[in-house]
Amino acid sequence: MTVRNLEHLFRPKSVVLIGASARPRSVGATVLTNLLHGGFAGQVMAINPKYKMLDGLPVYPDVEALPIIPELAVICTPPTTIPRLIEQLAMRGTRAAIVLTAGLSQVMDSNGKSIRDAMLATAKPYLFRILGPNCVGMLIPSLGLNASFAHANALPGRLAFVSQSGALTTAVLDWAKSKNIGFSYCISLGDGADVDFGDVLDYLASDVETSAILLYIESIRAARKFMSAARAAARNKPVLVVKSGRAPEGARAAASHTGALAGTDNVYDAAIHRAGMLRVYTTEDLFNAAETLARAKPMHGDRVMIMTNGGGAGVLATDAVALGAGKLAVLSDATLARLDAILPATWSRGNPIDIIGDAPVARYVETMKILLDDSQSDAILFIQAPTAIVPSDEIAGALAGIISQSPRPVFACWLGGNAVLQARKIFREAGIPTYGTPEQAARAFLDKVEYKRNQEL
Amino acid sequence: MTVRNLEHLFRPKSVVLIGASARPRSVGATVLTNLLHGGFAGQVMAINPKYKMLDGLPVYPDVEALPIIPELAVICTPPTTIPRLIEQLAMRGTRAAIVLTAGLSQVMDSNGKSIRDAMLATAKPYLFRILGPNCVGMLIPSLGLNASFAHANALPGRLAFVSQSGALTTAVLDWAKSKNIGFSYCISLGDGADVDFGDVLDYLASDVETSAILLYIESIRAARKFMSAARAAARNKPVLVVKSGRAPEGARAAASHTGALAGTDNVYDAAIHRAGMLRVYTTEDLFNAAETLARAKPMHGDRVMIMTNGGGAGVLATDAVALGAGKLAVLSDATLARLDAILPATWSRGNPIDIIGDAPVARYVETMKILLDDSQSDAILFIQAPTAIVPSDEIAGALAGIISQSPRPVFACWLGGNAVLQARKIFREAGIPTYGTPEQAARAFLDKVEYKRNQEL
Repeated sequence: MTVRNLEHLFRPKSVVLIGASARPRSVGATVLTNLLHGGFAGQVMAINPKYKMLDGLPVYPDVEALPIIPELAVICTPPTTIPRLIEQLAMRGTRAAIVLTAGLSQVMDSNGKSIRDAMLATAKPYLFRILGPNCVGMLIPSLGLNASFAHANALPGRLAFVSQSGALTTAVLDWAKSKNIGFSYCISLGDGADVDFGDVLDYLASDVETSAILLYIESIRAARKFMSAARAAARNKPVLVVKSGRAPEGARAAASHTGALAGTDNVYDAAIHRAGMLRVYTTEDLFNAAETLARAKPMHGDRVMIMTNGGGAGVLATDAVALGAGKLAVLSDATLARLDAILPATWSRGNPIDIIGDAPVARYVETMKILLDDSQSDAILFIQAPTAIVPSDEIAGALAGIISQSPRPVFACWLGGNAVLQARKIFREAGIPTYGTPEQAARAFLDKVEYKRNQEL
Repeated sequence: MTVRNLEHLFRPKSVVLIGASARPRSVGATVLTNLLHGGFAGQVMAINPKYKMLDGLPVYPDVEALPIIPELAVICTPPTTIPRLIEQLAMRGTRAAIVLTAGLSQVMDSNGKSIRDAMLATAKPYLFRILGPNCVGMLIPSLGLNASFAHANALPGRLAFVSQSGALTTAVLDWAKSKNIGFSYCISLGDGADVDFGDVLDYLASDVETSAILLYIESIRAARKFMSAARAAARNKPVLVVKSGRAPEGARAAASHTGALAGTDNVYDAAIHRAGMLRVYTTEDLFNAAETLARAKPMHGDRVMIMTNGGGAGVLATDAVALGAGKLAVLSDATLARLDAILPATWSRGNPIDIIGDAPVARYVETMKILLDDSQSDAILFIQAPTAIVPSDEIAGALAGIISQSPRPVFACWLGGNAVLQARKIFREAGIPTYGTPEQAARAFLDKVEYKRNQEL
């Protein structure tokens, strides 16, 4: 395995867009806008013989005409043009490109070779690295680089997302932005003809700006390379995987999508676990994992306290914890005595800690302080249903500082819809991982338990 | 079993609030506001010897002073006052009350009897019906009646929600409102000392304004009565159940919450299925079920077509359908030919139908029309990831009318965050059930399949 020349892809100082366009809603126009307005400090250039100027930028007719050697090229011209463009770029000294164009396997060149194979053959002698083809591109917010035709930009952060699906890439980007979650890298692999999961994992394993990695996988071609990179990455940071194609029908759909035949699901499952990665199963789990990885504090055990203003919500959280690998913490006598002193006589006197639906803000604050003080638990699930007694945002405002200053991890669930949007926002801005249901908050806690156990093995 | 006097609870023409208050954020003030501003056409009265007038309403010192006999009383005074109030109400001719007050089991009267038992003993000779105690109350939007201390009102609709948890009641209310889902009844049972699941199911089974019933259950006391009512209800309309206390720890938490010892989970599970009800397991499933029951069209089989603009999203939906009890529809030759004529050469030529990420609006419209025409499928999953090519709301606007005019059920997923909020809203307003992830949309389809199979047994 080699990360050779990947630095040109992932840390470029200049970028050229080949196929820049003025046509609204075209890929060429979208990428140009993204490149120019993402905040990239390096030089951005554009090529298209049809234009002299686009969006205030001089446009060059071809690679030869460029004033400097671009470190990275982004290509969205028709399939047949691509092998020659790679050749011209390589000759000038460029060593990396993102190919957005789709359909390269279906189109043949004059020798009866697929354009995909011709492109790879051209790139090989130069060790010229190619991301794609058939991908949405790549976003590196720390560089202000948006080399994609995604509809949105990404916030800077410490999560890397690597996806074999363009749709999942734009969906995760959009979802994360609305939750104020940032990325170190957001990479759409597309067909993965050259740069694949193994390459990217190898690079991200030692990338100091990335603290956790999320993967959406449909199929792996170079299994050994993948496993070795995955092991190395998972030793350094959490690596979470959604692997689709679980059912035979799904695997067939994946094969028709990425063109690669996927192995049976249990082979993948075993490999994911052997490499020390954590597998999650649904899009929602992926979203929730992003929330957890972006915000949750380090956790040192499997005991949890559930604090709630509603008995039923507490029961649902308890079920989720107990049906998973978590343990309900036992309240110490000292904690019980402190809680007795501030809670109504009808409180649950046990875990879950039900502070009762009529709780004013002070009761939330005092209870949370007592629970954060108790060393007999490793985490707190805070589960809140809306009430007319206190608006949720007032509770969130009073608790956010206390929770964010404590080293103890708290997983929060503000149940409901519009009435809790502001409370969720306040918690997220304070860095507290926040979920929509008790079960999702419990799942986040359980994922951390599982991750810790994996690490210990 | 008897529904005797339940009509006074569920169809009251006048309501008195006992314990009305001016103290901000108190239960007495919240219920008064809810009663006065919900749009109730009947007479609203209030009792509290401390006030002469509240919110423009004359306040009476006691039950005797009321100008007319209230059909329903809502009580939020301290426990010890309650048995005497029930007696006074019954003497005047009232036959139903909602008791919001908590802690009636823990407080004893002068004879050493719990207030709960004293209240029930007082009510019994009059067949006086009591909802609660320790509940959030009840909302009947078709009457404009909000006899609760929930923070929000409910929209009118055809779903009934009956909950043993006040927290779940306010959470579901809030969530449903933000999704524009309405209710025929929203009933918080609280401790269920008198009116219980059996009573309410019996009433709702034949209620023409209710087309589906959602239950949140922690424990059932009168099992035989419940089963007979559940069977009758499930024969007439879908009844979905979230039963918590699945793990022993959760069951213990439930016992401490509702005071009732729950049986083991598999006893409940068998009973739920035997009665013809459908069981779902999490808060999210409950939310999604509400969306499905409120919006999905009747479905006549188990074959589904998946239409998507992203291969990966299609694979995830396929997995979910195939791992459940659904079947991927086989595209007929006629449909294949029609799709070939309008889709790019690289389309999937099979189900899932991947219309490719660069699809303009016209391609969505034409594809959807062709799929709605094909009688070889019973439903369509529409799974869309955001793109820069067309804003999601434009696609939603173009599709909503076509879908809502077709008899074929469509389950939609707009993946993402802020970029798809408007599209989701447009679809929901057109009556199209809409979900956040491919798996949730698939789950909705599968729930309909399961419901149909249950009905056939």
